[in-house]
Amino acid sequence: MQQIKEAEIHINIERLFDRFDALSKIGATSDGGVHRPAFSEAHLLARQWFLEEAAKVGLEAKTDGAGNNSAVLYCTSQDGPKMLLGSHLDSVPYGGRFDGALGIVSALEVLQTVRERKIPLRFNLEAINFMDEEGRFIDIFGSQAVAGTIRAEHLRSASTNQLFKEALSIAHLNEDSILSAKRDPSNIAGYLELHIEQGPRLVEQNAAIGIVTGIVGIRTYRIKFIGRSDHAGTTPMGRRLDAAQGASSFTLAVRQLVIENFPDAVATVGNMIFEPGASNVVPQTVTLSLEFRAGSEGELNKIEKTLLGQVSVEAEKFGLKVEMENTGFVVPAIMDARFQEAIANASKKLGLAYTYIPSGAGHDAQSMARIGPAGMIFVPSVDGFSHSAREFTKWEDCVNGANVLLNTVLNLNCESE
Amino acid sequence: MQQIKEAEIHINIERLFDRFDALSKIGATSDGGVHRPAFSEAHLLARQWFLEEAAKVGLEAKTDGAGNNSAVLYCTSQDGPKMLLGSHLDSVPYGGRFDGALGIVSALEVLQTVRERKIPLRFNLEAINFMDEEGRFIDIFGSQAVAGTIRAEHLRSASTNQLFKEALSIAHLNEDSILSAKRDPSNIAGYLELHIEQGPRLVEQNAAIGIVTGIVGIRTYRIKFIGRSDHAGTTPMGRRLDAAQGASSFTLAVRQLVIENFPDAVATVGNMIFEPGASNVVPQTVTLSLEFRAGSEGELNKIEKTLLGQVSVEAEKFGLKVEMENTGFVVPAIMDARFQEAIANASKKLGLAYTYIPSGAGHDAQSMARIGPAGMIFVPSVDGFSHSAREFTKWEDCVNGANVLLNTVLNLNCESE
Repeated sequence: MQQIKEAEIHINIERLFDRFDALSKIGATSDGGVHRPAFSEAHLLARQWFLEEAAKVGLEAKTDGAGNNSAVLYCTSQDGPKMLLGSHLDSVPYGGRFDGALGIVSALEVLQTVRERKIPLRFNLEAINFMDEEGRFIDIFGSQAVAGTIRAEHLRSASTNQLFKEALSIAHLNEDSILSAKRDPSNIAGYLELHIEQGPRLVEQNAAIGIVTGIVGIRTYRIKFIGRSDHAGTTPMGRRLDAAQGASSFTLAVRQLVIENFPDAVATVGNMIFEPGASNVVPQTVTLSLEFRAGSEGELNKIEKTLLGQVSVEAEKFGLKVEMENTGFVVPAIMDARFQEAIANASKKLGLAYTYIPSGAGHDAQSMARIGPAGMIFVPSVDGFSHSAREFTKWEDCVNGANVLLNTVLNLNCESE
Repeated sequence: MQQIKEAEIHINIERLFDRFDALSKIGATSDGGVHRPAFSEAHLLARQWFLEEAAKVGLEAKTDGAGNNSAVLYCTSQDGPKMLLGSHLDSVPYGGRFDGALGIVSALEVLQTVRERKIPLRFNLEAINFMDEEGRFIDIFGSQAVAGTIRAEHLRSASTNQLFKEALSIAHLNEDSILSAKRDPSNIAGYLELHIEQGPRLVEQNAAIGIVTGIVGIRTYRIKFIGRSDHAGTTPMGRRLDAAQGASSFTLAVRQLVIENFPDAVATVGNMIFEPGASNVVPQTVTLSLEFRAGSEGELNKIEKTLLGQVSVEAEKFGLKVEMENTGFVVPAIMDARFQEAIANASKKLGLAYTYIPSGAGHDAQSMARIGPAGMIFVPSVDGFSHSAREFTKWEDCVNGANVLLNTVLNLNCESE
C-alpha cells in the first residue's frame, strides 16, 4: 500500500452518477420515484443491466440459484475469501430511486476503482445484488438464501401463493436452486453495505455518515377483534358488540404506550380489515396488523408484554373477544465492531462527520451478519422520507458514502495484512 | 261483509309453513340461513318459485320491467285500484331466512285466503316480490322503480359496474324496461308489508305486533383521513402523520357522541380501508364509511353537524387532512295514520299486544309511501338478530303477523266501503 496515498483514493464521481442515473430510469415513475417490485419487468431489466455493466468492465458476472447477481473482482486466488459489497435493485411498489440502488452502483464503482488502481487486496471483492430484499414474497429473500436461513418448508409454504410460483418460474428459480445458494462462511471475509438512512436522524445531527451499530429486531402480530355483526339500523348503540371500537381503541393505545414507555422503539398498526365491511352492518371482526421494532431482545420482550396485554384490556371494554397470531419474528443483528471502526476511520480520513445509529429498517446485512462480520454505512435522507418518490439524498452525500465504502474496504484490507 | 264473522278469518297455517319451508331451502346455508343475493342463481330460483306458486293457485303471475314479480287477485274491475302487499326474496350475503321471505309467503297466503273465502273487496290485491331490496347494486331497487325514484342517470352511473350490467342482462332488464316499471299513483290503493323487526324492541316490550310509525332517514359519508406514508421502522413515533390514529379516534368519538346526545339514533363506522395497508408502512390514508339514521330530518341535521364537525377535530389532533363525500341520502318516510290504525284494530281483534315503533332499517315501504298510503307490520326478532343465520322469529309470531296482515286488508276494505 506504500505507493498509494490513502487520502487520494476516491471513486469516479461521473461514472457513479451515470450508473445511478441509468438505474433511476428503469421502472421510473412520473414523480421521480421507481416502481421495481421484485420479479417485475422493471426489476428484471435492472438485473440485466447489473450483469451487463459488470461484464462491460471486465468483472466476472454471475447469478446464483436464489437469483442473486454478482460481479466478482479476483484480487487473490479464485478460492480465496470474498469481501461482499451488496444491496438490492428491487423496490417497494412506487418507492424511491435511492433505496438499494445507491449501494449497488457504489459497490460496482468500488470494484472498478480497485481494479483500475490495481490496488492489491488480500481478499476478492464481490458486488452482490440481492433478490427480493423488500420482501414482495419473502423478506430479505436473497441474502437469507446466501446465509442459509431459508428452509425448504418456508419455500413450500410460500409457494402456495400462485404469484410467487409464477415469479420463481420467470426468474428460473426453484426450491433446489434456492437452497443451493447457501454460502460457506469460511469463504466470506465480510459484508459491507452502503444505504440511505431512510430516517431523519443524520440530518438532525448534521452527520454525513451513519455507522450502523445494529439492525432492530421486528415482531409482527395479526390481531383479530371479534364482535357480532348486527344491522346498523335496528341495533341500538348500547347493544352492539362492535369490533371497530376495540380495534380503534387499541390503535390509539399502541401509540400512547410506546411514546410513553419505549421512546427508542416504534410500533405501527399498518392495516385493518373489516368483516363484513359494509356501511350498514356493525363490524363483526376487525383484523389488524401490529408491528414493533427495537434494538434488543430484552426491549422487544417488554414491548410485546405491554402491547399484547393491552389487547384484552381494550377488547373487554367493548365486550369483544380476541385472537392473536405471531406473523413475523426478526431478531436484532449486531454489526461487527471491527467493521464499525473501519468505517469510522474511513470517515475521519475523508474529513466527514459521522455518528453511530441503529437501523430501524431491515437490510440484507441482517442475514449476512449470521455468516460473517458485517458493517453498514448510512448516508442522510432529506426529511427522513423513504419508500416513496419523496425519498431523496443529496448527490454529495451519495458520493461521500461511496468513498467511505471504498476506504472502509481498504482499511479492512490493511488490518488483515 | 255481514255474512263473515271478522274474528274467524285466519290464514291457513300449514300452507304458510309449507311455503316458508320451501323458500328456506332455496339458497339454504348449512347454519340455517340463506344466501340469496339479488340476481344470484338462488335468487332467480326463488323468483321462479314465486311465479309458479302464484300460477298454481290461479293468481295472475307477471313480472314488470324492473324485475318485480307480481301475483294478482282481481276482486273488482281489472283497472280498479290495487292494494299491494309486498316484500322481497333477495337476501344479504349469508343472511337469515325470515327477512323478506315472511312478507312474501304471507302476501301470497292473504290473496289465497281472500280468494278461497270469496271475500268481496273494493280493491284488487297484488302480492309483489320486489327486486334487489337489499341493494346489492341499488338500495330498494324494485320499489324505487315502481315509485319512479330511479332515474336514467342513476342507472347509467350504476351500469359502469360490470357486475351490475351482467346482472341486468341475466334478468332480461335494461334501462328502458326499468323506467317503464313506474306506476300511476291513482291506481294504487295502498301498500302493506309484513316484516321481521330486525331489532330487539318488540321482545323487550313483550309486544307481538309492531306498528311501524315511520322509516328512519339514512345519511352515509365516505371520510378520508390523509396523513403521510412513512417507513414503519425508521420514522420516530413523534414525527408520524398516521392516518390510522385519526380514523380510530373518530370511530370512538362517533359512538360516544351518539350515545350521549342522540339516544334514539344510531351511527356506525362499518368499514375502513387502509392505504397502503402494509404492516411495515405508516398508513397514509384511512377511508372509512360513516352512516347514521334518525326518524326526522331535524335530528339527522343535528347529528350530521355534530359528527362531521368532529372529523376535523380528530384530524387536527394528529396533523391529518380530511376529505368527505356524501354517499347516501335517504329521507325518513312516514307511515300512513289510517293504515296504522287499521293494523292496530286488526291486532286488537286478534287479541295481540302491539306497540308503535319506528323502523331503523330501510324497506320497500319507503318507496311506496311516496306514491300512496303505506303501512308496515313488524313481528319480533329473537335477540334482535338479523342479516345473519342467527336471525329468528318464533313460528307463532310469524302466523300472528300474517293474520294481522290479512285483517288489516279487511279493515281497510271496510273503511273504503
